Amino acid sequence: MTVKLVVLYTRPADPEAFEKHYLDVHMPMAVQIPGVQRAETARFVDAPDGGEVGWYRCAELYFADADALTAAFGTEQGRAVAADFEAVAPPGSRLLVADIDA
Amino acid sequence: MTVKLVVLYTRPADPEAFEKHYLDVHMPMAVQIPGVQRAETARFVDAPDGGEVGWYRCAELYFADADALTAAFGTEQGRAVAADFEAVAPPGSRLLVADIDA
Repeated sequence: MTVKLVVLYTRPADPEAFEKHYLDVHMPMAVQIPGVQRAETARFVDAPDGGEVGWYRCAELYFADADALTAAFGTEQGRAVAADFEAVAPPGSRLLVADIDA
Repeated sequence: MTVKLVVLYTRPADPEAFEKHYLDVHMPMAVQIPGVQRAETARFVDAPDGGEVGWYRCAELYFADADALTAAFGTEQGRAVAADFEAVAPPGSRLLVADIDA
């Protein structure tokens, strides 16, 4: 696995409703995207730098390489997950691709 | 591993010098902090959300639990790594603690 999609979520207006959809619907959909080799989700709880925690959640989807990631989001499942992200991610949430260091 | 320290780096003024220090000095120090069970670093390369990539790097240090993370940064090695972070992290870089979903 050489590349990952990093998703940073800003704080939702209704965290309880967000959590329910995110954990019960969104992530189960995401791990079924063809090519996803590993998935990890986490909720931010503290900011040791002394700032506001700010970000609410992060998620990472791991792929063999950049081509696999691109192909994944061209599949029906990938497009469905992207559409669900657009529907539920709070404004300012980010989708970033990162090259993992060897 | 139930908790991780997530480090988000903003873009350094001199990426080449930053990379050299980060990969040759900072991360080798970080993985020696007592209690670190896993470490991953990655460099952001793309923003599929259509925004600016913005963030430059992310790093994650994994611990058994929140107590282990707190204890880690009370050790001599943990304090040295924190001091090195303060010295080299570009302004606006973040240190966040996240609870990993089961």
